[in-house]
Amino acid sequence: MSSTFGTAIKLSVFGQSHGEGLGMVLDGLPAGETVDLDALQAFMERRAPGRNAWSTKRKEPDIPVCRSGLFEGKTCGAPLMMEILNQNQRSGDYADLDQIPRPSHADYPAAVKYGGFADYRGGGHFSGRITAAFCMAGGVCLQILKRRGIEIGAHILQIGNVKDRPFDHVFLQKDELLLPGKKPFPVLLDEKGIAMQNVIESVRKEGDSIGGVVETAVLGLPVGLGEPLFGGIENVISSAIFGIGGVRGISFGEGFAAAEMKGSEHNDAYEVQDGKVKGKTNHAGGVLGGMATGMPLIFQTAFKPTPSISLEQESVSLTKMSEEKLVISGRHDPCIVPRALPVTEAMTAIAITDLMRQAGLL
Amino acid sequence: MSSTFGTAIKLSVFGQSHGEGLGMVLDGLPAGETVDLDALQAFMERRAPGRNAWSTKRKEPDIPVCRSGLFEGKTCGAPLMMEILNQNQRSGDYADLDQIPRPSHADYPAAVKYGGFADYRGGGHFSGRITAAFCMAGGVCLQILKRRGIEIGAHILQIGNVKDRPFDHVFLQKDELLLPGKKPFPVLLDEKGIAMQNVIESVRKEGDSIGGVVETAVLGLPVGLGEPLFGGIENVISSAIFGIGGVRGISFGEGFAAAEMKGSEHNDAYEVQDGKVKGKTNHAGGVLGGMATGMPLIFQTAFKPTPSISLEQESVSLTKMSEEKLVISGRHDPCIVPRALPVTEAMTAIAITDLMRQAGLL
Amino acid sequence: MSSTFGTAIKLSVFGQSHGEGLGMVLDGLPAGETVDLDALQAFMERRAPGRNAWSTKRKEPDIPVCRSGLFEGKTCGAPLMMEILNQNQRSGDYADLDQIPRPSHADYPAAVKYGGFADYRGGGHFSGRITAAFCMAGGVCLQILKRRGIEIGAHILQIGNVKDRPFDHVFLQKDELLLPGKKPFPVLLDEKGIAMQNVIESVRKEGDSIGGVVETAVLGLPVGLGEPLFGGIENVISSAIFGIGGVRGISFGEGFAAAEMKGSEHNDAYEVQDGKVKGKTNHAGGVLGGMATGMPLIFQTAFKPTPSISLEQESVSLTKMSEEKLVISGRHDPCIVPRALPVTEAMTAIAITDLMRQAGLL
Amino acid sequence: MSSTFGTAIKLSVFGQSHGEGLGMVLDGLPAGETVDLDALQAFMERRAPGRNAWSTKRKEPDIPVCRSGLFEGKTCGAPLMMEILNQNQRSGDYADLDQIPRPSHADYPAAVKYGGFADYRGGGHFSGRITAAFCMAGGVCLQILKRRGIEIGAHILQIGNVKDRPFDHVFLQKDELLLPGKKPFPVLLDEKGIAMQNVIESVRKEGDSIGGVVETAVLGLPVGLGEPLFGGIENVISSAIFGIGGVRGISFGEGFAAAEMKGSEHNDAYEVQDGKVKGKTNHAGGVLGGMATGMPLIFQTAFKPTPSISLEQESVSLTKMSEEKLVISGRHDPCIVPRALPVTEAMTAIAITDLMRQAGLL
Repeated sequence: MSSTFGTAIKLSVFGQSHGEGLGMVLDGLPAGETVDLDALQAFMERRAPGRNAWSTKRKEPDIPVCRSGLFEGKTCGAPLMMEILNQNQRSGDYADLDQIPRPSHADYPAAVKYGGFADYRGGGHFSGRITAAFCMAGGVCLQILKRRGIEIGAHILQIGNVKDRPFDHVFLQKDELLLPGKKPFPVLLDEKGIAMQNVIESVRKEGDSIGGVVETAVLGLPVGLGEPLFGGIENVISSAIFGIGGVRGISFGEGFAAAEMKGSEHNDAYEVQDGKVKGKTNHAGGVLGGMATGMPLIFQTAFKPTPSISLEQESVSLTKMSEEKLVISGRHDPCIVPRALPVTEAMTAIAITDLMRQAGLL
Repeated sequence: MSSTFGTAIKLSVFGQSHGEGLGMVLDGLPAGETVDLDALQAFMERRAPGRNAWSTKRKEPDIPVCRSGLFEGKTCGAPLMMEILNQNQRSGDYADLDQIPRPSHADYPAAVKYGGFADYRGGGHFSGRITAAFCMAGGVCLQILKRRGIEIGAHILQIGNVKDRPFDHVFLQKDELLLPGKKPFPVLLDEKGIAMQNVIESVRKEGDSIGGVVETAVLGLPVGLGEPLFGGIENVISSAIFGIGGVRGISFGEGFAAAEMKGSEHNDAYEVQDGKVKGKTNHAGGVLGGMATGMPLIFQTAFKPTPSISLEQESVSLTKMSEEKLVISGRHDPCIVPRALPVTEAMTAIAITDLMRQAGLL
Repeated sequence: MSSTFGTAIKLSVFGQSHGEGLGMVLDGLPAGETVDLDALQAFMERRAPGRNAWSTKRKEPDIPVCRSGLFEGKTCGAPLMMEILNQNQRSGDYADLDQIPRPSHADYPAAVKYGGFADYRGGGHFSGRITAAFCMAGGVCLQILKRRGIEIGAHILQIGNVKDRPFDHVFLQKDELLLPGKKPFPVLLDEKGIAMQNVIESVRKEGDSIGGVVETAVLGLPVGLGEPLFGGIENVISSAIFGIGGVRGISFGEGFAAAEMKGSEHNDAYEVQDGKVKGKTNHAGGVLGGMATGMPLIFQTAFKPTPSISLEQESVSLTKMSEEKLVISGRHDPCIVPRALPVTEAMTAIAITDLMRQAGLL
Repeated sequence: MSSTFGTAIKLSVFGQSHGEGLGMVLDGLPAGETVDLDALQAFMERRAPGRNAWSTKRKEPDIPVCRSGLFEGKTCGAPLMMEILNQNQRSGDYADLDQIPRPSHADYPAAVKYGGFADYRGGGHFSGRITAAFCMAGGVCLQILKRRGIEIGAHILQIGNVKDRPFDHVFLQKDELLLPGKKPFPVLLDEKGIAMQNVIESVRKEGDSIGGVVETAVLGLPVGLGEPLFGGIENVISSAIFGIGGVRGISFGEGFAAAEMKGSEHNDAYEVQDGKVKGKTNHAGGVLGGMATGMPLIFQTAFKPTPSISLEQESVSLTKMSEEKLVISGRHDPCIVPRALPVTEAMTAIAITDLMRQAGLL
């Protein structure tokens, strides 16, 4: 275990890359919430592969079917269940991978953990394909949160060494927040987006891949949301976000830059605005002691370069215990970040929904 | 809620900075484990304040009393309970803080969350003082893990802009791992440690504070330890580590540097050594798909500068809703990182113990 | 929430009586376990309706489809997901039930709880139909436990005022344990079974229904299985068993009869047999302090009479707030006990599997 | 594990009968709740031993000390921690019990489970003494619930074969509910109470003991309280109640008598009263589909006779594996039921508080 997430809601994710299907059960949503399946489909399209030059060409319709949880278009108290039936299974591409684990994939530890019984085809349950289920659950949570004035958005902050400007941590508004998600390439500064795409195209031609960073923000959180110590916003979001394959780090507000700052630089002074307490700055990224401060919640997620590359790599045969050369065939995203971005939004939405339910605010 | 942590073990932490006591209950340890209370005390001393120039002068004996869980010196199946009775309560220093929240502390969101009923004295339950309880629990887990060949160590990687060299991610041995913890100032390169202490002394004289980064490593994890998706090593460790006040980010292996790397640079090739599968490199930091690879587990934790500084700051009166100047009196650590380091080791030990219990390996 | 069960395994159940489907996700099973789908189907047949005179005539094929968790016929570490697609939806029969809650069904509190958004058709998520999902999960657990020498069986102890003899609580062997489950009517004494069927047929003709008691036993539990206080065998089994609709009570060993016994009568003396500690008697029903004693685990589950009866009943219109007569059309089991029996075995198997995983024994 | 209980609140109980202390941490209570420590002490007195002829003569002051969770007399968001320091430790009485397990106690399975490391003195963590911690937590919950109009009461329904009349399941009011708890011997009909005490005195003289049944009721639950399937009122209460040593069964409403009833007898017709939906009868005991119906919640708990009796018993030496005679010295309650009654109320209050918090109603 634990393909299960949540405290006041419970997400249970199932599926293998090349299995019969994949999906999720989400228990604990409030009843009476309209679920807009078209909007959900549109959200899931943002994650779908094969849409452009830099993503894998596998065409997956990825149309989720709902088997439980809705009645007359609204949540009804029963657990929400949605799934996608796999239609594009090509196990042949992966035939020898049980023998030779792909570097930087989960193949080797999974083979050991499950005593050789793991489904190695395409990474099995560890495949990025499974994040489609995250988007089903998170897409519904996004709709529910939006209705409460909570908006979640993200943009690509960095690909290789090309950096977008960050969100405005202090004055971020809904327009800026949601703008990147509406673009084909989700950045704030389009010229940086073009430079990023050039980097991706360049590594693609080399048969290589590249990493990146996503910046996510949440507006509208009630002050005080989040529980103490191990139930804080950072704890819950990080344990959700590290569920996405390829994540190597997460940081809030100034993140690792805080290490070089003085208290007098990093502390956020308070002021009174329109009869409300506001921060003059937001180095904290909207969270103190695990609780929302009312300023925009800001965090950064680092993604490693896609481990599947076309270049020849060194590995071993687990059966022969011999050293072997490995060439991974098939097409793979040279950069996972653009498709991982909506997944990040989805997991954030699930984490926030859980915290809202824990606090009795939803 | 949630001052509770764990899945197969349950840690419950209680206490307020200026309350009657603080401590923890740890349920689910294996029976028959010898608990060396002297070694535990020595471990807790590493966190204790007042030991040197750069830490606060409050003298707390911090001697934990065990009320449950041991029988004839060994764990007996009953939950382990230890506590420290507070003896050094000076609420007077904090008398007006309910009115004026300290910037970058939890005061403001806690006041809102608990409707004005939070114990604001010294941060109450959100105080760094509570991490003494983490060390009680983690110190016992460290002893249990050591007996299984699992060793945890850490060093200060960075204070301000002074950086220690990282652990050797590929060939790290127990000697190097545990060396920093035995030094008064826990670094690998002592000249860097002196420079760091100079930075701390410098900000202290200014009435200011400074942040830093801790690098933690774990040796001896069984290959495959860790559960899929939301139960992976990164998920569990991050949700534990973000329970420590002042943590702003966590990253594994190459961390945020992975964003600038190509797959051909970041992927760890496998080789066979002495009949075992090994990585030639360890950019992954010892964890793939949430599971241990058998290479050293490596992660970095970023700490913000201590929020309590002597310099005058701008805040607001929550009762009068007016803008106010705030000067925090009393002595505070100008840098929390040296004392936070054993707390990081402690929370890591608790997380690993939980994962080992989940896997039926402990 | 909580259509989710378990600590070291997680069962998540979804579906509505007249929805698109129903099923379950079971996370945390050991890898490498063969799942015999034919045996599972045979087990599920024992719960299926329409098999004889006293059960409802709705014909449901109830063939579960597996979408996740198996690879080459064995569990592979991914969550096990199985579902049944609903093919026999006749919502018409239930058209007015949202207005007029059926006595002794969940209709009324569900309507209030979910603010009128509950799926009232056939009881929605509260329908006994959902227990098919329990049998999918439990049927697989039964196979896994059997492989470890743990056998679970049950018989009808009572229908109305007709009683079967109880299992032999001290000397129960596998043959006696599994015998009732192989019979069309699962009792130990067939003449009592005939009398029970007569009772059922009699109430059926009256348009009425009748309750009963199931006795369940488990052989082969390791001594000491079960956790203290709230994690004991009774706690875990009872919280599983009360998930079955219509259960009104559960008792272990002597159960409520213990109230009339003296300690000298109820205490089980120990003896040594073949170098092992055994109880001379088993009034405890195989569990002390929440832990298995090594004697057969014995418990009784009381079921109320089926609430759906053909007789006219008094209810109210929730919309008009007027008193109304209600006649429930359609066919319903006059006694739920025969079909509830395999469901009881299934939930017992899930609970025991969870306890075995918690103890690191599976 | 699991001396931990709860979903939206977390109770963690610690202590051994003859250890340094016992107590509990309760995380997740709402902030701002006044805790009346005198009322709590009075509640705990109802469980205290040595108060009358039929209870053990050990005098324990049992005064809980609060170390965390209160600020200026009110809950403050920090976990509530209370403990009792043991002052009356007489290990000598139990010196040989590690060798010879007491029949019907947890000694034998605990010795096996913990590999001989269990604290066998007085039952260690399995001792009834630990239920003092249940009363600390439950006593506070009772105060919180009472403020919301939820009242919990209980009476002795049966000792041996002497039976009190049940609560009025349909028209139960607060006066009748709380009356028994105010009496020295908590029954509705005092003449039955005298007969029960005679039974107890009689078995005491014989060196024997006797079992009994407690009936508990809850008034004021909001309609719809309780979660589906495994989170229902019965599931949560039963998993709490089986945490009390000596409980052998639990049933709701008609309980096991429902087995002999027809649907036409057991179904509760609805009517409209003062514009509200009411049941004409309450055979369901106030709960359908796991959810509160608005009628009084009624359940019965069966207790076995105290296992500690003065009569000679047959047991075995676990070290010598020989059959041995055992005489338990010291004084023990010949009937645990009167003292278990407030413990039952306490665990009910904890369970209901958890359900209220889960539903966002507290």
